Amino acid sequence: MSAHPPFSFELQARSGRARAGLFHTPHGVIETPCFMPVGTQATVRAMTPEDLRRLGAQIVLGNTFHLYLRPGPALIRAAGGLHAFMAWDRPILTDSGGFQVFSLAHLRKVDEEGVVFRSPFDGGEHRFTPESVIEIEAALGADVIMPLDVCVGYPCETADARLALERTMRWLSRSVASRRRDDQALFGIVQGAFDVALRREAAARVAAFDLPGVAIGGLSVGEPHAVMYEILDAIADALPADRPRYLMGIGAPHNLAQAVGYGVDLFDCALPTRVARTGVVFTRDGRVNLRNRAFAEDMRPLDPDCACEVCRTFSRAYVRHLFKTDEMLGPRLATFHNLHFLIHWTQEMREAILGGRFNAWQRSVLARYATSW
Amino acid sequence: MSAHPPFSFELQARSGRARAGLFHTPHGVIETPCFMPVGTQATVRAMTPEDLRRLGAQIVLGNTFHLYLRPGPALIRAAGGLHAFMAWDRPILTDSGGFQVFSLAHLRKVDEEGVVFRSPFDGGEHRFTPESVIEIEAALGADVIMPLDVCVGYPCETADARLALERTMRWLSRSVASRRRDDQALFGIVQGAFDVALRREAAARVAAFDLPGVAIGGLSVGEPHAVMYEILDAIADALPADRPRYLMGIGAPHNLAQAVGYGVDLFDCALPTRVARTGVVFTRDGRVNLRNRAFAEDMRPLDPDCACEVCRTFSRAYVRHLFKTDEMLGPRLATFHNLHFLIHWTQEMREAILGGRFNAWQRSVLARYATSW
Repeated sequence: MSAHPPFSFELQARSGRARAGLFHTPHGVIETPCFMPVGTQATVRAMTPEDLRRLGAQIVLGNTFHLYLRPGPALIRAAGGLHAFMAWDRPILTDSGGFQVFSLAHLRKVDEEGVVFRSPFDGGEHRFTPESVIEIEAALGADVIMPLDVCVGYPCETADARLALERTMRWLSRSVASRRRDDQALFGIVQGAFDVALRREAAARVAAFDLPGVAIGGLSVGEPHAVMYEILDAIADALPADRPRYLMGIGAPHNLAQAVGYGVDLFDCALPTRVARTGVVFTRDGRVNLRNRAFAEDMRPLDPDCACEVCRTFSRAYVRHLFKTDEMLGPRLATFHNLHFLIHWTQEMREAILGGRFNAWQRSVLARYATSW
Repeated sequence: MSAHPPFSFELQARSGRARAGLFHTPHGVIETPCFMPVGTQATVRAMTPEDLRRLGAQIVLGNTFHLYLRPGPALIRAAGGLHAFMAWDRPILTDSGGFQVFSLAHLRKVDEEGVVFRSPFDGGEHRFTPESVIEIEAALGADVIMPLDVCVGYPCETADARLALERTMRWLSRSVASRRRDDQALFGIVQGAFDVALRREAAARVAAFDLPGVAIGGLSVGEPHAVMYEILDAIADALPADRPRYLMGIGAPHNLAQAVGYGVDLFDCALPTRVARTGVVFTRDGRVNLRNRAFAEDMRPLDPDCACEVCRTFSRAYVRHLFKTDEMLGPRLATFHNLHFLIHWTQEMREAILGGRFNAWQRSVLARYATSW
């Protein structure tokens, strides 16, 4: 058990390297493995908090970069924090905004102190430092917070990966030193690009910080899946067994099924909500694009094996009609289903792990789930 | 009681000329006065059927013109009708599509037989006749159906209004003759543009058809509100007391409060859902535009006097943030509130009528509700 009350991670069972656990936070206990819906702008797109409860969400993400720019941390603090502002009383995780600064913002300059960037909304200049990000996250008040890190792309030279890793580690030290709220769990982030040795070293160095959880960042940025699995395989034993492991930005069903097999506990990704808005829904057989003419008269549910409210109520033909006529209800229903699907998927993995039969579950679902689409 | 089983209208109480009643249909009883949300394309924009039940909707509209073009009546019939297709098990009303043909379609030609028009979606040529519209509506399967009528604009010469009225009456005869389904109530539509004498004549002629309900069409198309009230005042006594009266296309709270005073029972309008999508919400004091900077830090509900789920859960500051960041949840929450507001508004009128105090209610709410915005 980690010595960071009110946070702790109970490892309940292993099946191979897959883990089932309970992550205790000030706003409730999270059963792992767990998929966390992304609520970038203090809203999981198209969903109410009640929808999220009904589809089984245990924790949602907020994005520090977006919320810092709009509506700003002062307003959210005045509203009583992010939980009160968005009316979500279960756990929240905020990322550091680092990934967005490097991918969305007009980057001005990164130096040892931090990053200067321009807002993509109004061009205004802003600076993030490890300390200012911790301060913003304190105003937002999430249960789990991420430190500012240096993100690199794919491919990446080992020398560049080393420089980014070293700065990420120094920024982590500054983040730890600037923390003030004991009711927020700061995770360390394992970087190191696509170099297995560097990743293993990073995992050991992050573990040495003895933080309440460890994140694995900088993956799924264009590298082959095999590279990601190789890294997960290599670092699993270097990570503390009694802390939750969060693989950042991964959300495809087959990737989740593989990553849990390497001992990952927590996931987030905008994929299920983003593709839902284009009419793409998950099924046990793979993704389906409802805009396809093949579904025009298809009176079956989105996924015939799904028991969610949307699948119990509406047909593919109806939801396709909503997308073809640009009705908002289409993205809303597809979002609900996709989030339910992924969360149910992680619940199934949890039950399989608790029952000691994770490998059989994994083989069976991966044999059926088509990834060729 | 009207001799059109399974349809009947029980007049329960009057307060002045305002009426409270029960309209029996195959899918349930509608308490009047009643506001009917508009679900043009087999969906009340952004709402699920469950939302509609929770906000108190008793009946929703579908639009024959839109549903004829997309997805087409054959698909909806194959799905088991509009109720099954959109998963709404309470009453539905379909309009005739006449108004849309005259306002949205690229009109090719109107003659005694019907209208030829081009689809605004793909330019394809289509013909509506009174008979074909009844046939489409039979495929859709709504409880209440409207006949094809001839719509005119404002202003309108009396001679033109007379021609349109005469054709509308001949088309009503053909609609009545082509009806096949006894489980659908065909209403007659009172036209006559803005000429009080013509309107009174039309009301008497429609009443003579002895149909299960009467609609009042062609109003709120640009004329001053005083003209609409003068017409409602003039025709009230010419309409059968034992049939529901439906004022088409009226949805502003103050207009509803006035029209009920002239004996109107049913209303529909896209206004509450359309303005909701732009950030405008109804309050007891009038409309509020949430995009206004004045609400940036306003932690009060959308309407401090409203008890709907949205007002119980979220602040103006939060919903404004959703609109400023183009989040779908903004239109969704504003739509829910506006529909709840109008439906609660008609429920209050009903209670006031049953209590014999409608005039006092009307004076009180109209004194407070600001229409200047």
